[in-house]
Amino acid sequence: MVNQQNYPNRTIWHIEGDEPVVQIIDQRWLPHELRIANLKTVDEVSIAISEMWVRGAPLIGATAAWGMYLAAFNLKNYHPSEFDSTINKAAEKLNRARPTAVNLQWAINNQLSNMKRFSSVNEKIEAAKNKAAVITEESVTRCKSIGVNGVTLLKELSQNKNGAPVNILTHCNAGWLACVEWGTATAPIYLAHKYKIPVHVWVDETRPRNQGARLTAWELGQANIPHTIIADNVGGHLMQHGMVDICIVGTDRTTRKGDVANKIGTYLKALAAKDNDIPFYVALPSSTIDWEMENGLEEIPIEIRNEEEVRKIKGKSGNSIEEILIVPEKSKAINYAFDITPHHLITGFITERGICKASEESLKKLFDK
Amino acid sequence: MVNQQNYPNRTIWHIEGDEPVVQIIDQRWLPHELRIANLKTVDEVSIAISEMWVRGAPLIGATAAWGMYLAAFNLKNYHPSEFDSTINKAAEKLNRARPTAVNLQWAINNQLSNMKRFSSVNEKIEAAKNKAAVITEESVTRCKSIGVNGVTLLKELSQNKNGAPVNILTHCNAGWLACVEWGTATAPIYLAHKYKIPVHVWVDETRPRNQGARLTAWELGQANIPHTIIADNVGGHLMQHGMVDICIVGTDRTTRKGDVANKIGTYLKALAAKDNDIPFYVALPSSTIDWEMENGLEEIPIEIRNEEEVRKIKGKSGNSIEEILIVPEKSKAINYAFDITPHHLITGFITERGICKASEESLKKLFDK
Repeated sequence: MVNQQNYPNRTIWHIEGDEPVVQIIDQRWLPHELRIANLKTVDEVSIAISEMWVRGAPLIGATAAWGMYLAAFNLKNYHPSEFDSTINKAAEKLNRARPTAVNLQWAINNQLSNMKRFSSVNEKIEAAKNKAAVITEESVTRCKSIGVNGVTLLKELSQNKNGAPVNILTHCNAGWLACVEWGTATAPIYLAHKYKIPVHVWVDETRPRNQGARLTAWELGQANIPHTIIADNVGGHLMQHGMVDICIVGTDRTTRKGDVANKIGTYLKALAAKDNDIPFYVALPSSTIDWEMENGLEEIPIEIRNEEEVRKIKGKSGNSIEEILIVPEKSKAINYAFDITPHHLITGFITERGICKASEESLKKLFDK
Repeated sequence: MVNQQNYPNRTIWHIEGDEPVVQIIDQRWLPHELRIANLKTVDEVSIAISEMWVRGAPLIGATAAWGMYLAAFNLKNYHPSEFDSTINKAAEKLNRARPTAVNLQWAINNQLSNMKRFSSVNEKIEAAKNKAAVITEESVTRCKSIGVNGVTLLKELSQNKNGAPVNILTHCNAGWLACVEWGTATAPIYLAHKYKIPVHVWVDETRPRNQGARLTAWELGQANIPHTIIADNVGGHLMQHGMVDICIVGTDRTTRKGDVANKIGTYLKALAAKDNDIPFYVALPSSTIDWEMENGLEEIPIEIRNEEEVRKIKGKSGNSIEEILIVPEKSKAINYAFDITPHHLITGFITERGICKASEESLKKLFDK
């Protein structure tokens, strides 16, 4: 889990033992400190998800899958009938940790229905452990496939640049810190870098939690990929002046019509890309597709987080991490965490199965629905 | 200059004496501390403008006008011929303090051409003092007229709201802190509040210098006007959901065709307003119109400020003001300060002479050009 430079390139792993432990990178301290946290109960997993020690749709899914295993393990002395009702309650509680990412619900339901196939508690626990491992490894494979499919776009763009880097704008963090490995939006970038296609990434700061400036910039820096942090306000100006060749972002939930719920502010960048004829791609593992939903604006629940995330900000002062107030003491704030980018603003989806248009027809065709 | 609550409602004033002093609010410390700074030389005025102790197109103009007076006063023992060449050099230097706001250049040229009408140094100094006072008072009158003209829009919108507040979104600070009194974008809001038209203001944080969260929120709070601070990423979401009735912003330079250079990120909000059929108005005193310029994207110089304004942020920690690092130590940033909103995205201009379309024809008609 740790590469030669002693930095992990994986966000979550499981340590077997008498008392199983799931370890994660506690992302709240990045980029200033790399802290690993131990999770031993489903309640700890709930907190880690709701307080964003981990975040990003695929990682929320994987963490929830491990959370369900921990829940199951901690019921090892229960009677099967008690086990079922108790784990259902745990599932309901875990499901409330974040409302927007579909992967949370998907991973929990996957664990529940799989456990139902077994009658003994021991078998259920074993099944939950195996399923969590499978969900985690599938995430890695899907992300890598997104990279393989997406890098063709960067290669093409590179051909018209005479050796100058392809300028990619990304919003929030859809990197390996949002997944297990590789990332979604970053997977094509990491592969391009590996293939020596010159790239440069415009990293949207992504207020209020600054996942771009904190996490994406940190990831890219670790991989020695050229990047520049910009305020969220800047992307439109760059696009007006030909300084962006392609936008690639992630998604927390995708409707079957191709509407995308992603980090607040994504919609504004999609509008600017449209206005300046710049390709706007969303990278997504199929686990983020909610086939039940059609219209993103009407149907996807948008999480409202604590206003203190807007009013205060954490950073490094000397050797310590400080939190400071950046607004008048009495002023209120509101903290919508996601917005909807309608499908007509999206050039295409980069998925593990290939690239397709942001339409119901194309999605169904690609995923045999 | 100070109202009953002991808060100033004016940003700049002059104290006569053997050694004249220009006093300003040093806006770098708001909203946490209200500090008044003394300016005694044109070099101090240059620093106050370039380091943004004062900012906002109209205030930059007024401060530059007083700066030219201080420059003139400090040459009181010069021979008229030396006076002219020395003050021209001071003007050139002052003119480089900020590149985008046209008011800087306008105020300096106004002072230079006015002083040329007099032959003795004493008369020149007296003329500069009077002109600075006139430019300052004209700014107040223009802003108040913008309020009178703009409040009609808010009154109309209010008629369909059944007593619910008119929701106004504004970006950056185009309030009295950006001017001398009243503000530009805020003038209609202050008047509406006075007339008991219910209003609520969505205040864009306005990264990286947070003039919205720091200054606009502070101003509105002092005036007891309901407001909510939002990350710059949020406006599009609010507009998609009918939570914005009108956008009103300021401008640092306006071309004769109606393109507007305003704080970086304005363009993105204008795109969202267009996409959701929400009126998007720019409030401007005619001093921000650059009649020489036609195409904003091609002709207006866009200031690039120090990247440290993106990488670090100041705020309150306990009783002290701290600056913290909010990005990885090795990651670079770039800090474009303005962007261009093309005239076709603008519903209209609110000026001191009335409301008009964002077109050359309408502007020329309104201003008898």
